[in-house]
Amino acid sequence: MPDTAGALLELIAGAQDGDVRKIARLISKIEDGGVEAREVLRALATYSGRAHVIGLTGAPGVGKSTTTSALVTALRSAGHRVAVLAVDPSSPFSGGALLGDRIRMQRHSGDEGVYIRSMASRGHLGGLSATTPQVIRVLDATGFDIVIIETVGVGQSEVEIAATADTSIVLLAPGMGDGIQAAKAGILEIGDIFVVNKADRDGADSTAREIRHMVELGTWHGWKPPVLKASAAQGTGIDEVVDEMNAHRAWLAESGEDRVRRHRRVREEITALILGAVRERLAERRDELEALADAVLAGDLDAYAAAESLT
Amino acid sequence: MPDTAGALLELIAGAQDGDVRKIARLISKIEDGGVEAREVLRALATYSGRAHVIGLTGAPGVGKSTTTSALVTALRSAGHRVAVLAVDPSSPFSGGALLGDRIRMQRHSGDEGVYIRSMASRGHLGGLSATTPQVIRVLDATGFDIVIIETVGVGQSEVEIAATADTSIVLLAPGMGDGIQAAKAGILEIGDIFVVNKADRDGADSTAREIRHMVELGTWHGWKPPVLKASAAQGTGIDEVVDEMNAHRAWLAESGEDRVRRHRRVREEITALILGAVRERLAERRDELEALADAVLAGDLDAYAAAESLT
Repeated sequence: MPDTAGALLELIAGAQDGDVRKIARLISKIEDGGVEAREVLRALATYSGRAHVIGLTGAPGVGKSTTTSALVTALRSAGHRVAVLAVDPSSPFSGGALLGDRIRMQRHSGDEGVYIRSMASRGHLGGLSATTPQVIRVLDATGFDIVIIETVGVGQSEVEIAATADTSIVLLAPGMGDGIQAAKAGILEIGDIFVVNKADRDGADSTAREIRHMVELGTWHGWKPPVLKASAAQGTGIDEVVDEMNAHRAWLAESGEDRVRRHRRVREEITALILGAVRERLAERRDELEALADAVLAGDLDAYAAAESLT
Repeated sequence: MPDTAGALLELIAGAQDGDVRKIARLISKIEDGGVEAREVLRALATYSGRAHVIGLTGAPGVGKSTTTSALVTALRSAGHRVAVLAVDPSSPFSGGALLGDRIRMQRHSGDEGVYIRSMASRGHLGGLSATTPQVIRVLDATGFDIVIIETVGVGQSEVEIAATADTSIVLLAPGMGDGIQAAKAGILEIGDIFVVNKADRDGADSTAREIRHMVELGTWHGWKPPVLKASAAQGTGIDEVVDEMNAHRAWLAESGEDRVRRHRRVREEITALILGAVRERLAERRDELEALADAVLAGDLDAYAAAESLT
């Protein structure tokens, strides 16, 4: 249908001119899936690959949303266009936060150079939605040179964010007993930059020391993750975080690691689309799946045979 | 091949007689996948569905392994055969623990009524392996009437365990600042029983009170999760946990919820087998995936088209 294709190209042109509502409509088309999602991605295929994708993760209570807001302010001052995808169910962007947090966010609400979107999370624990890579692609193609993905650090999300972001920032806070514990659980492996937020509180130095010690013990290839202190609420230490983001980006480009990460992101994207299509087909055959589960429960069939009969 | 089939039936018979090495061999066959895994599951299809599957989850440091060990002792005294699947990468069962923990575990090592197995976790954050439901099936069919799955509470694992277990126990500890935080992050939704461990420490009462308060505010259908205090290291409060496990099991049976949960587990099992098969096929076509990712990165192809050409 040439009309629809024309309308779509117009929508894309408007989005690229910075019309926030048109950007939102493009992203909604992606999230809805189907033919239009495909058309959008096809039209945008040649535009993408420029944005710096930042993952920001940390346990609830470490101050992720305040830090995101402070980073947005600093990045805007430096002339960047910044998009924020909030996957954190407790984030003010996602609507789950305290009033104070929401008010703090509103300083960006009239700014055309900032786009904020709450993303549905997969499962209660904040896993990234399967459409996240495609949404990044839309934001990238519509002129956002920095995309921040904010996700709560108690899910599979850390691992997914490390597979999706160019630069992963892990946020910690003093006195939460989570320094060594978090490190134990694998968070250390995914951080490109560690930030101890609420640096004015007791214990910030010892938390930073703990993480530095773990970084020293770890193996790192070319880039040794810095451990910074900041107080996002007071606005201190944020410029240093931005400096390290830029330094990491420069290192990614020099080392060729950026290509490795982008390649991995595209592989993840293709794989997610394939698995998503399989899940969709299974959802359409829900009745059959139920009946097969009944047969397995009754001992009439083994699970492998059930799986095969649905393939 | 009748010989192989005969050998397999002999192996199964031996496993059902309680031969631990034969049980281990059956489980290894499941984990290896392929034709033999299929044969084992087919042979066991009519045996299963009796075991009470317990999920035990909690953040690192709350004392999961000590609690598991104390529960095993109590359940053995009550005449149960108990299997433990340890998915927690920091668990002594999985080899990642302090010497003291390992020694504490060894009290079960000569007991034929206890089977302990470390399971590979998917990703660093302790997601359940896709073969977990099949391994449960083997343990169930070889006479273990209680299967405890121990998993670290910082991953997708909580959600997965809730989809896999009959009864989910969430372990907390006082003074870790994780009461309300954990609840916020969705842990509250998955616990059938909450246990505040290390009850001899300061703050145990207030942590228990917080959780009780959250339970009161929540919506629950028929079963209201109890909040218990225990000290697994000192052996106090463990009998009460066992009592609540039994009460929950009785409620599951009365309410018909047990059938709902088992049905869901089987559906998850079938779905996991199908998705696993898709992932395997993708792994075999790795070169094609790499080439398609190159084309997408170059802007010559969109991700949907790449996904379709691999389907």
